[in-house]
Amino acid sequence: MAKQITVGIDIGGTNTAIGFVDRNGTCVFETSIPTKEYADITPYLKNLAGIIQKELANKPDLQVVGIGVGAPNANYHRGTIEEAPNLSWKGTVQFCSLLGNYFPTIPVTITNDANAAAMGEMIYGAAQGIRDFIVITLGTGLGSGIVVNGDLVYGHDGFAGEVGHTTVFPNGRQCGCGKKGCLETYVSATGMVRTMAEILCNSNKPSKLRDIPYNEITALAIELAYKDGDELAKECFEYTGQILGLKLADAVCHTSPSHIFLFGGVAKAGKLIIEPTKRAMEENLLPIFKQKITIAQSGLLNVNAAVLGASALAWNELEK
Amino acid sequence: MAKQITVGIDIGGTNTAIGFVDRNGTCVFETSIPTKEYADITPYLKNLAGIIQKELANKPDLQVVGIGVGAPNANYHRGTIEEAPNLSWKGTVQFCSLLGNYFPTIPVTITNDANAAAMGEMIYGAAQGIRDFIVITLGTGLGSGIVVNGDLVYGHDGFAGEVGHTTVFPNGRQCGCGKKGCLETYVSATGMVRTMAEILCNSNKPSKLRDIPYNEITALAIELAYKDGDELAKECFEYTGQILGLKLADAVCHTSPSHIFLFGGVAKAGKLIIEPTKRAMEENLLPIFKQKITIAQSGLLNVNAAVLGASALAWNELEK
Repeated sequence: MAKQITVGIDIGGTNTAIGFVDRNGTCVFETSIPTKEYADITPYLKNLAGIIQKELANKPDLQVVGIGVGAPNANYHRGTIEEAPNLSWKGTVQFCSLLGNYFPTIPVTITNDANAAAMGEMIYGAAQGIRDFIVITLGTGLGSGIVVNGDLVYGHDGFAGEVGHTTVFPNGRQCGCGKKGCLETYVSATGMVRTMAEILCNSNKPSKLRDIPYNEITALAIELAYKDGDELAKECFEYTGQILGLKLADAVCHTSPSHIFLFGGVAKAGKLIIEPTKRAMEENLLPIFKQKITIAQSGLLNVNAAVLGASALAWNELEK
Repeated sequence: MAKQITVGIDIGGTNTAIGFVDRNGTCVFETSIPTKEYADITPYLKNLAGIIQKELANKPDLQVVGIGVGAPNANYHRGTIEEAPNLSWKGTVQFCSLLGNYFPTIPVTITNDANAAAMGEMIYGAAQGIRDFIVITLGTGLGSGIVVNGDLVYGHDGFAGEVGHTTVFPNGRQCGCGKKGCLETYVSATGMVRTMAEILCNSNKPSKLRDIPYNEITALAIELAYKDGDELAKECFEYTGQILGLKLADAVCHTSPSHIFLFGGVAKAGKLIIEPTKRAMEENLLPIFKQKITIAQSGLLNVNAAVLGASALAWNELEK
């Protein structure tokens, strides 16, 4: 009997990762193509589809039952990628129908990266069996996927789950989205670098990070400095957790999740980020929500979560 | 053939309103009992059930197909009222099963007042046919009911939709919930009175409201002063709208509704509150959400919305 798999496709500005994933989350094939080398969508899709078709021809024991795609600015309802700033395909790309032309019998579903991460968490990760949770992805920006009663929240337009662009301080730090004071300008890998620079200029305590140019400071460098006893690096994590906890308390007021999972590079710092976040969230929670909510690391931190998330999206469609 | 109705019960600290409502939202019978005269739940329920049973015996053409209850601190999942500060029944009251003892063949469902208002809006009001919306109730406090893809969001614990207790200013105004800086301390009838007092002390412009004691200023008095040309009353509405708009932009980032409906006394001020709210929300929205969202008055402002909302909850259960 053929082994059922879904194809997970994660489209990043630099590379597109492709994986064949079974229902248990085992990746039976993985490859990638360089997204940025395709200024036009047509040859990109032709190559992408060609690679998948060729590999399937080599593996007659596999049966593809769905294709899931994670991409920036992807719209689940419309099957499109719309005005993605880091991709060279401008305007609205009818991604699902264009890719579907190559696979007419297979359903193709798309959503944004953070929603795909939430799906991955639900199907393969730490959120298995949990019906109300939020995944926060802490990378260059702050993405979020919100699950209510077992379903991902898409909203009327397909763009729900943008907690990174809630406002912390009106007229605060300039955000890439055009607004000021967005959560992701404080809580993300780049937000932490901004905070570190602010702490370095406001304090006169010594710190190793004073010897690194702004452009070379990373969240990982701050984490390593913290672990090495750097007080200002610790302060940076504390501040980041305070802001994240404050805004997670707001998020809880909306959908009342039982769990919040942190994903992405910054989440690898574990308790260094989770403890101050949890403390600040509890301080800011409405009493009826206190001491009920688990904040934990994603269960997919050390695997190819983006491809797994995209493939989970496809499994979820089949199981709806 | 019997006419199908649901019983809507709205439990307030002072009175409990009871209505028999058909699927079109027509109330065929309405009455009330004084909640606060029943220190104990047992005689309260006996009287409540007795009134309903007696009225049904008088109206043999009616068939009750469900009972819906709106109450403070009500929990949909558990069918309980829990630690409601304005009710004399302390602890956890198993309301649905206790009332159900009197009506063993009829499903009884409960939720909080704001969620019931959202249900009423969806079944009878301005949200008919709309799948993603938020109802904000602006009364003594600020309540909210969030609908995602046609379903009310309850969250893992049944307490979702508490937007009134998201934080505007950490360490801001003292809220009744024990926190500081909650949205409802700025945006609600009582929040507006607090704002008005702040404006009166910060400005030296004349205002009629300077002749009214703090305890006698109401949101309606501020509205009437505004309509009468009072500049400081106008400033109060502008400020209230700015804060509400800022936090609605945050709410949109969570569930991306197409519509936000304002309900309650303050909402009756119409464009006086809607216009500054809309302006501030648009200023603070992530670009992909701009110019997409309608803010409008509830369609149930001039009817017994609380009873309708409770009865709508019962209809919705039947139609799930």
